[in-house]
Amino acid sequence: MKFSKIPAATITRLSLYSRNLEELESEDVKVVSSEKLAERCGVNSAQIRKDLAYFGEFGVRGVGYYVRDLLFEIKKILGLNKEWNLGLVGIGNLGSALIAHDNFIRQGYRFVAAFDNDIHKVGKKLPSGLMVEHIDRLREIKEKANIEIGVISTPAGRAQDVANRLIEANVRAILNFAPVHIQVPKGFSVENVDFSIKLDNLAYHLTTEV
Amino acid sequence: MKFSKIPAATITRLSLYSRNLEELESEDVKVVSSEKLAERCGVNSAQIRKDLAYFGEFGVRGVGYYVRDLLFEIKKILGLNKEWNLGLVGIGNLGSALIAHDNFIRQGYRFVAAFDNDIHKVGKKLPSGLMVEHIDRLREIKEKANIEIGVISTPAGRAQDVANRLIEANVRAILNFAPVHIQVPKGFSVENVDFSIKLDNLAYHLTTEV
Repeated sequence: MKFSKIPAATITRLSLYSRNLEELESEDVKVVSSEKLAERCGVNSAQIRKDLAYFGEFGVRGVGYYVRDLLFEIKKILGLNKEWNLGLVGIGNLGSALIAHDNFIRQGYRFVAAFDNDIHKVGKKLPSGLMVEHIDRLREIKEKANIEIGVISTPAGRAQDVANRLIEANVRAILNFAPVHIQVPKGFSVENVDFSIKLDNLAYHLTTEV
Repeated sequence: MKFSKIPAATITRLSLYSRNLEELESEDVKVVSSEKLAERCGVNSAQIRKDLAYFGEFGVRGVGYYVRDLLFEIKKILGLNKEWNLGLVGIGNLGSALIAHDNFIRQGYRFVAAFDNDIHKVGKKLPSGLMVEHIDRLREIKEKANIEIGVISTPAGRAQDVANRLIEANVRAILNFAPVHIQVPKGFSVENVDFSIKLDNLAYHLTTEV
């Protein structure tokens, strides 16, 4: 599927809708009104209708959305009707936590390879069963294991170098946990995870509500 | 300061502006146009002007923004002109990674206490010098160490119980890393960190750009 000019914020909200629809499905809810779904997601219902309108007609007037159908459609839009293979680089505390985080699996993401450049870590088996490989084998293992998304959990100073290796190996999407901005060429995507932006939101609330 | 009805997205973007202004300041840039700042932040310049307009008049026509002044003002708005004290609950891999993450410190957040309920961890000294305390001492240590923001890095099944304890101890803001939604009463704030939403963005790009 190809849609033109979908705002990035819409894509992020689709993720959020999908998470909440999954919860509703697990609670055995069959139908949800746009108001109820909106309330749950912390947005307004006009926003949901606007976001979905980019992709077609969903929902039934006077009824709402069929939970399972809408979830299926949103997953198709986001490309989540398949599993995605992740390769992790940097097996420190954060890397180990990420690989053990069962939320990834639940959402359709699966770590298929783990890399480090520390020879004391290479060859070790992680609790998940994966073996830590040397980063020099990235390109070869990328092909074998079909790594689609690279996850960087190295120190900041190593992150761009690791990104360059992922790019050389043609891993076209990168999730970066290192506290530094990563440059990627056209045709490659990068998302930076910055915990402290969430903290700024909390600080703002604490400051204004006192 | 108290501003009414500032959209949450504006606050998140202010964080982003502040990060980029800090980088500019460290590069010794004195003045930046709204176009340049916008490009760097990945938004459009009208958005920056609109976001800042909630809080007053910034920038000089035909010149742009004075980097240091704008950074100062934004930090004041966000409540980042002070240090914030964090208390971490859950000293597994993720908790250990968070406490070692130097980005928090750089952004004005400081871990002042660490808790767990595992008696094998309680009493251990972390590399940062902090000692792991038993979660039962939360209320007492909250007062002593002035914990302002609670950070939850426990397994999902423990997170709401930990949140309840933080609330009982009157820790009014919570950053939650556990893959579960946390309920807090009015007057308390919670931000959930969900890595997989970022992955969904990447999956969408991989799906649409092929």
